Amino acid sequence: MRRSELQTPALLVDETRFERNVGRMNARLARLRVPLRPHLKTVKNIELARRMLAGHPGGATVSTLAEADHFFDAGIDDLLYAVGIAPGKIEDVARRIGRGMNLTLVLDHPETARAVADAARRLDVPFRVLLEVDADGQRAGFRPDDPGLIESARRLERGGALPAGVMVHAGGSYACRDRAGLVEIAKQERDVAVAAAGALREAGFEAPVVSAGSTPTALFADDLAGVTEVRAGVYAFMDLVMAGLGVCEIDEIAVSVLTEVIGHRRAPGEVLIDAGWMALSRDRGTAGQAVDRGYGVVCDDAGRVLAPEVIVRATHQEHGLLARRDGEPLDLAGFPIGRRLRILPNHACATAGQFERMWWIDAGAASIEPLDRCRGW
Amino acid sequence: MRRSELQTPALLVDETRFERNVGRMNARLARLRVPLRPHLKTVKNIELARRMLAGHPGGATVSTLAEADHFFDAGIDDLLYAVGIAPGKIEDVARRIGRGMNLTLVLDHPETARAVADAARRLDVPFRVLLEVDADGQRAGFRPDDPGLIESARRLERGGALPAGVMVHAGGSYACRDRAGLVEIAKQERDVAVAAAGALREAGFEAPVVSAGSTPTALFADDLAGVTEVRAGVYAFMDLVMAGLGVCEIDEIAVSVLTEVIGHRRAPGEVLIDAGWMALSRDRGTAGQAVDRGYGVVCDDAGRVLAPEVIVRATHQEHGLLARRDGEPLDLAGFPIGRRLRILPNHACATAGQFERMWWIDAGAASIEPLDRCRGW
Repeated sequence: MRRSELQTPALLVDETRFERNVGRMNARLARLRVPLRPHLKTVKNIELARRMLAGHPGGATVSTLAEADHFFDAGIDDLLYAVGIAPGKIEDVARRIGRGMNLTLVLDHPETARAVADAARRLDVPFRVLLEVDADGQRAGFRPDDPGLIESARRLERGGALPAGVMVHAGGSYACRDRAGLVEIAKQERDVAVAAAGALREAGFEAPVVSAGSTPTALFADDLAGVTEVRAGVYAFMDLVMAGLGVCEIDEIAVSVLTEVIGHRRAPGEVLIDAGWMALSRDRGTAGQAVDRGYGVVCDDAGRVLAPEVIVRATHQEHGLLARRDGEPLDLAGFPIGRRLRILPNHACATAGQFERMWWIDAGAASIEPLDRCRGW
Repeated sequence: MRRSELQTPALLVDETRFERNVGRMNARLARLRVPLRPHLKTVKNIELARRMLAGHPGGATVSTLAEADHFFDAGIDDLLYAVGIAPGKIEDVARRIGRGMNLTLVLDHPETARAVADAARRLDVPFRVLLEVDADGQRAGFRPDDPGLIESARRLERGGALPAGVMVHAGGSYACRDRAGLVEIAKQERDVAVAAAGALREAGFEAPVVSAGSTPTALFADDLAGVTEVRAGVYAFMDLVMAGLGVCEIDEIAVSVLTEVIGHRRAPGEVLIDAGWMALSRDRGTAGQAVDRGYGVVCDDAGRVLAPEVIVRATHQEHGLLARRDGEPLDLAGFPIGRRLRILPNHACATAGQFERMWWIDAGAASIEPLDRCRGW
């Protein structure tokens, strides 16, 4: 299909930018001598997953059991399900392990460890588990000195499950303001992970796995000694939040939403498009950054930013409103009815999550190819 | 299936509340003597659509061509596509009309009218069109005295298309603060629609259709004289934004997300759940209301609000964080690992839009039934 035949709104992925972003992460991790376990919650597609996995050991990270099934069915069998396991999902996990999926769980509470240990005993399944550790007080995880960490490992082991090490994710890296902050939080993430693994080893556990990461910490870490694998996902697409953090440039963002001009608001000088929050998502990740980019930055049909001031100011379910950040009216003559534009998103995971299909823009080809995405839970 | 067997997160619809909400709208419109053309973008499901259509003429409103296909295939053939038509979609529309779909378009710009007229001539398809009118300066539409309104109707007619009347949606009703404001904006919506239809009739057009509405204006209008059909969709589910407007009570919200406790944050006294923004959506519609309810209000597994202060404070892709609005710690003993809860959403359309399937909780049955949802564009 040609891009001009695509019905709007549509999610586009630019091959040249995608490959450059993947290459950048690979080069960085090669210097740090740590392999990648890519997080596939961003791309949710097997062909892009294979490009991210090339040159790495082959294990991947997922955020839902639906993703685990999707990628397992396509041949990726070493999968880390990186959300604290819900007791209600343990039997579902056991069934997957029974089908040959090498699925690793995470947990951060002794009561969850008890539930997993009980299930391991009852079902005779040696669940492999990483203990989640908290680097920045933002979300989940044991503090490295929490006695619950060792207690949980012991419970798992007694039940016949395998406490295989630790996992940490410094989500606080998304709130950094500069390069020094990113370097510092990457150090903190590594230090906490290594300390927790050390605590487990002192208590007699082997703890072979020390899994750490996020896109900002992976790209800005100075040293990852002691970390055995890095997890990152958004690096392949990048987005305006990453650009606002200084992790990438706006013209390195590989994902965009194709849309069409459907109306004008003459008085305020605004433009209506056929991409609302159903397509762009309600994510406003740049709202707390130095430059608030609304629901996204507007590009021409070839992906070139029109002007950094031109953003999607507001969204309704299927309508978006383009405006200038400074409140000056847009020159409506530049936005004729039917003009096609592309919107760069705040948060690639959230925007891509609104679509069941992406369209791959191959640098060398006139045509575009569909890429299906995994959905649901 | 029993509810206890559902994997979390899952979208639930409570039959008792749904039927009460539908009955309330029907009673209101019966008093106002105006039929309903329900907007199906909220439910996106044929069985719920049929319950909303019962007792009305049978026409419905959609926000995407995918919805139009979904409902047409299930036997609903009178469909209003209530988003300004993108020129790039006109040929797709023509194909649908060729298959027997009675699809009405809307537009609000003379250039769009020209594109539709040209296509009508070229393809010999008598597109049926409503001219969108602006009641509140929020989004799209001609002002009733805009000469472009008549000019567009003339262009359509000359091309062989049918300008069938006007459509108005007072989205500004979502920003009202009290009952008086809702009554006032409902009046404004009606007055603008009737004035625009009057302008068309003065210019010689029949303008049989005067389509108006939103859930708040439909429920609070005192008088809809001159309006020939009302459009509303969210009324069937209701949500926290509607409750914040005074349009419903919190315990009338029919839709919720089932989730499970997966962790505790002891220091701040917060609870981790397995529903993040991928399930709840990023919608923060109550953020601008008198009471900001975060990403949703927390209920027990039977749908009873725990306490109005207990909300989803923050979300990550697949994690939610429960906290109290007043910042006091939650009593974690009340949230054991594995406890199931339900979250009432800010915006029913946005949260439901994250799911491919809903689960219908029949008041009289122990089991639950799946309801598929239309997705995409």
